[in-house]
Amino acid sequence: ELKELLETVHPVDIAEMLEDISKKQMILIFRLLAKEEAADVFTDMNSDMREYLINTLTDSELEEVMDEMYVDDTVDVLEEMPANVVDRLLMVTDEDTRKKINALLQYPEDSAGSIMNIDYVSLRREMTVEEAILKIRQVGINKETIYTCYVTEKKRLIGVVDVKDLLTAGEARLIEEIMDENVLCAKTLDDQEEVASSIRKYGLVAMPIIDHENCLVGIVTVDDAMYVLQDETTEDISIMAGVSPNEDSYFGTSVFRHAKNRTLWLMLLMLSATVTGEILRHYEEAMSVMPVLITFIPMLMGTSGNCGSQSSTMVIRGLAVGEIEFRDFLRVIFKEIRVALVVGLLLAAVNGIRIYLMYNQDIMLAFALGVTMIAVIVMAKCIGCTLPLLAKKIGVDPAIMAAPLISTIMDTCTILMYFTIITAFFRLGG
Amino acid sequence: ELKELLETVHPVDIAEMLEDISKKQMILIFRLLAKEEAADVFTDMNSDMREYLINTLTDSELEEVMDEMYVDDTVDVLEEMPANVVDRLLMVTDEDTRKKINALLQYPEDSAGSIMNIDYVSLRREMTVEEAILKIRQVGINKETIYTCYVTEKKRLIGVVDVKDLLTAGEARLIEEIMDENVLCAKTLDDQEEVASSIRKYGLVAMPIIDHENCLVGIVTVDDAMYVLQDETTEDISIMAGVSPNEDSYFGTSVFRHAKNRTLWLMLLMLSATVTGEILRHYEEAMSVMPVLITFIPMLMGTSGNCGSQSSTMVIRGLAVGEIEFRDFLRVIFKEIRVALVVGLLLAAVNGIRIYLMYNQDIMLAFALGVTMIAVIVMAKCIGCTLPLLAKKIGVDPAIMAAPLISTIMDTCTILMYFTIITAFFRLGG
Ligand SMILES: [Mg+2]
Ligand SMILES: [Mg+2]
Ligand SMILES: [Mg+2]
Ligand SMILES: [Mg+2]
Ligand SMILES: [Mg+2]
Ligand SMILES: [Mg+2]
Ligand SMILES: [Mg+2]
Ligand SMILES: [Mg+2]
Ligand SMILES: [Mg+2]
Ligand SMILES: [Mg+2]
Ligand SMILES: [Mg+2]
Ligand SMILES: [Mg+2]
Ligand SMILES: [Mg+2]
Repeated sequence: ELKELLETVHPVDIAEMLEDISKKQMILIFRLLAKEEAADVFTDMNSDMREYLINTLTDSELEEVMDEMYVDDTVDVLEEMPANVVDRLLMVTDEDTRKKINALLQYPEDSAGSIMNIDYVSLRREMTVEEAILKIRQVGINKETIYTCYVTEKKRLIGVVDVKDLLTAGEARLIEEIMDENVLCAKTLDDQEEVASSIRKYGLVAMPIIDHENCLVGIVTVDDAMYVLQDETTEDISIMAGVSPNEDSYFGTSVFRHAKNRTLWLMLLMLSATVTGEILRHYEEAMSVMPVLITFIPMLMGTSGNCGSQSSTMVIRGLAVGEIEFRDFLRVIFKEIRVALVVGLLLAAVNGIRIYLMYNQDIMLAFALGVTMIAVIVMAKCIGCTLPLLAKKIGVDPAIMAAPLISTIMDTCTILMYFTIITAFFRLGG
Repeated sequence: ELKELLETVHPVDIAEMLEDISKKQMILIFRLLAKEEAADVFTDMNSDMREYLINTLTDSELEEVMDEMYVDDTVDVLEEMPANVVDRLLMVTDEDTRKKINALLQYPEDSAGSIMNIDYVSLRREMTVEEAILKIRQVGINKETIYTCYVTEKKRLIGVVDVKDLLTAGEARLIEEIMDENVLCAKTLDDQEEVASSIRKYGLVAMPIIDHENCLVGIVTVDDAMYVLQDETTEDISIMAGVSPNEDSYFGTSVFRHAKNRTLWLMLLMLSATVTGEILRHYEEAMSVMPVLITFIPMLMGTSGNCGSQSSTMVIRGLAVGEIEFRDFLRVIFKEIRVALVVGLLLAAVNGIRIYLMYNQDIMLAFALGVTMIAVIVMAKCIGCTLPLLAKKIGVDPAIMAAPLISTIMDTCTILMYFTIITAFFRLGG
């Protein structure tokens, strides 16, 4: 009944469903799952639920789950667990797998090695297509993917064969005749984001990973690459909003953790903003002579912040997807200056007309504000596009140079520029 | 020589390289490419280069390229071309393919139908595994993927078989015995982003697409899904920065187009910010009595804008990756209020100490600013998390409710709250 129903549901959906019921019920349902399905569901659930399951299941139940899991997923699970849980999991794992797991655990976080799978199909160049297919028949069932097979010689990666080529080539042909020798591959210590980007760029189903001696040690599959890209984008978006990134989900993160992730930047930006306040105070006299000046401050600060953030965001995204590089610096800044002039003239005109109509047709005021507007927009776009490129150059994450920081910087610069221009125009004391 | 060298380079890299050389050289090199490689390179290049190529190649050269392309890629190319170029391309295409292309061109932009491929392997339930493999041998070469095969009955999709299952099952077994009947599929009119997200969520290499009569009409492959997700994320990030999204690349977009994409929001936000300016002016008197008040305005506006943007960004991303839904409204707002209280207390304390030390140990001022700080942070986080959820509910893109809009709204709310609290504290006239 329920058992049969569960067989028709995808493991990902079962894992999602289990999140919404009580832990007691969760265990009951988990025990109903077929061995293979149980392993898949275990892989897809969140770490809280996993830890609970590990503490509740018997050793032999746990062993069955671990047996069915792919090594890369096991490593993912272990990386999130406290030491005592890791020990328990390793105890129920057979000697051979334990060695593999320990080897994978050595790779640094976010490296290709840390997300690779070591169960791939390897072929030899002198095999015939028929022999290769026979090999897949024998070992394929235990491999995560057979879509691409890798040709090795003394463990070195020398070619790649797609299963489509195997099935459409004559059975007597040799692997070395049909293999593609121009293999795209990555190194174990390469950043996982770069590997995932390459998988996307070249439309691969898996990317072979080699060690420092050019020996094939594993593959990264496209399903994992998609998650890496999603996580890296979430990380970028967090940083761009001034929030320290966090591997856990929104609801999976505690209130204090959320607060901690957000306070650092807020504190820094709050303290920087006091500088702007002091500058503002410095021009108190000018404002008491011309009280209308204060009216334009929110508009100028807001506009320059938005202009700067637009430019920095475009550049940060361009850097992330590989469309812009540091060598494009001059092209970017030249483009942004021209955009700024067009945008600035438009906004200055609209704003000028508004001021002219609303403030007793004071053409001088309208003109001074127009000049200020264009100046701060050009400045905002220059600073906005420059900072992410510089960050990239010196090895800092460009995502830091996004809206919160840019708008704080722009607040200061805008006030300075505003009063410099205005005091010059109306000959007010600074 | 050069020809041989080109064979070792991936088509994606050739396309990239061709972007950097003159159009004359580009044509020369393009003509050196083998038929199949030429089609791949053509698929991967930008639309400018494609249009130039189409206008330069002879009909028979063009026919060769079109022959080798997958229909989904041809449709992508056609969608970007002016009408006369489309006509020319359709002229060199054979009758049968032309019909397929015309059918695909009918699907709305951003629908699953518009990105699907109609060349897939279909099997029948009564086939044996041996027969199925034989079929792949015969037709596989013309299919984009053979990794998964689809079982149909009177065109209806009834199951899916992975090539791994075909190769590891006994040759005499029937397809209906080994096929998975719980097929995940999507409809032609589904949003491409949803289809791509499902491919990621379930780790598929392709998603079958059915029409309104449940007949299988095509598949969306993972390589295209990855590009859809990248484009949709870039779109979200643009909107979040107050830039109208754009299908073209940063450098591929003209200065005027960039300016146009950015001006709309800037204009709107600039005009809204004048409201804040007027409110500020309304409190001129209070500020002339207590000139120090002006000093805290940039800090308060900046902090509330940043706080609001943090919350709205977290929620927008959570909505985009399917982690937060509208039904989580109360959970989100409850969480944000608690985060706001923690963050607010911390910032108010630090700021209070600073004010106490810097402004003649004025404890009253420090306290009033602390209260204001906590109030604006709670308000910012509430507004920040509410707006994206409401937008989602009423069918507006939540990404609009990001930093630029939130910080403009927060500027106004902050000034109002600041002076309301301060005038009450110090009994100043409003
Ligand atoms: Mg890992
Ligand atoms: Mg990370
Ligand atoms: Mg990274
Ligand atoms: Mg997996
Ligand atoms: Mg995996
Ligand atoms: Mg990153
Ligand atoms: Mg399309
Ligand atoms: Mg969309
Ligand atoms: Mg493709
Ligand atoms: Mg395609
Ligand atoms: Mg779109
Ligand atoms: Mg979208
Ligand atoms: Mg601001």
